[in-house]
Amino acid sequence: MALFEKGFVHVYTGEGKGKTTSALGLTLRVAGHGGRVAFVQFMKGWPFYGEISGLAKLESVDHIVTGRPDFVDRRNPDPVDISEARRGFEKALNILSEGSHDLVVLDEIIVAIDYGILSSAETLKALKSRPAHVEVVLTGRNAPTELLDYADYVTEMVEIKHPFRKGITGRRGSEY
Amino acid sequence: MALFEKGFVHVYTGEGKGKTTSALGLTLRVAGHGGRVAFVQFMKGWPFYGEISGLAKLESVDHIVTGRPDFVDRRNPDPVDISEARRGFEKALNILSEGSHDLVVLDEIIVAIDYGILSSAETLKALKSRPAHVEVVLTGRNAPTELLDYADYVTEMVEIKHPFRKGITGRRGSEY
Repeated sequence: MALFEKGFVHVYTGEGKGKTTSALGLTLRVAGHGGRVAFVQFMKGWPFYGEISGLAKLESVDHIVTGRPDFVDRRNPDPVDISEARRGFEKALNILSEGSHDLVVLDEIIVAIDYGILSSAETLKALKSRPAHVEVVLTGRNAPTELLDYADYVTEMVEIKHPFRKGITGRRGSEY
Repeated sequence: MALFEKGFVHVYTGEGKGKTTSALGLTLRVAGHGGRVAFVQFMKGWPFYGEISGLAKLESVDHIVTGRPDFVDRRNPDPVDISEARRGFEKALNILSEGSHDLVVLDEIIVAIDYGILSSAETLKALKSRPAHVEVVLTGRNAPTELLDYADYVTEMVEIKHPFRKGITGRRGSEY
């Protein structure tokens, strides 16, 4: 039986910490309730993220990672960035339309849209293709208005204080 | 070996969704890196949270739940609310000062402080008692200035859009 009678759409956006992290937390919660989760990551091909082995510990979670290890140049994305994003999108579209999972996370898809690698129109269409019980989380900065309008929950993570400003870079276990 | 060379303090606050959820996500990430986590929950005695069985799937996580199943009356907390919060606090204090865990989550401790059940002075003292490698997350609305000043990361979850406003209550797998 599906976990959700009606699946909602969450957007986690903003400059602050906690977008992917919240999606991971929701995954843990849904897995705890016995639900099935697809966690699709965009532009995250770097192999040292803690979520890779963390999600692997949860047997009802399918983790799909796309992207290159390197950062994407927003003004000049590599052809591989584009093909990797398309690969993630096709996977996500299949998973959404099949309705095989209670929760589908599209991690950083909003960044791929913001960079012009994917479109918000095709993303909206994919969301609308899902059966009613499928809950979806989209994360990333600079969410476009069409997605915000369609979403049921929108949370903006606002950075009030951050040590990187003091010159500290991302730390293993905290940022990745 | 400790996961963090220097453990930082995170505060997740604000009215929006994603405070406990982010703490759960950080737990998953740290567990993924092989780190040990203590997840101490305050005012959360209700037994149907998805995080209970979710966290139980992660073998390097100790989950300590305190509180009654009922909501706490802010103007008139039950003696059990107070004794439960104290039980959680003493546990947390021991765990923090021992330095046995890489990450210590004090979930909703800020609410207990806001309700006057715990004090920010004793919480700060507990934070300062920890060895340098221990990372800490505190969650809850209405974080007091002293905690914000002490924290390294402060993120405010701002609710932009929420279906409860349309009359929908918390849903299994999403809010709990």
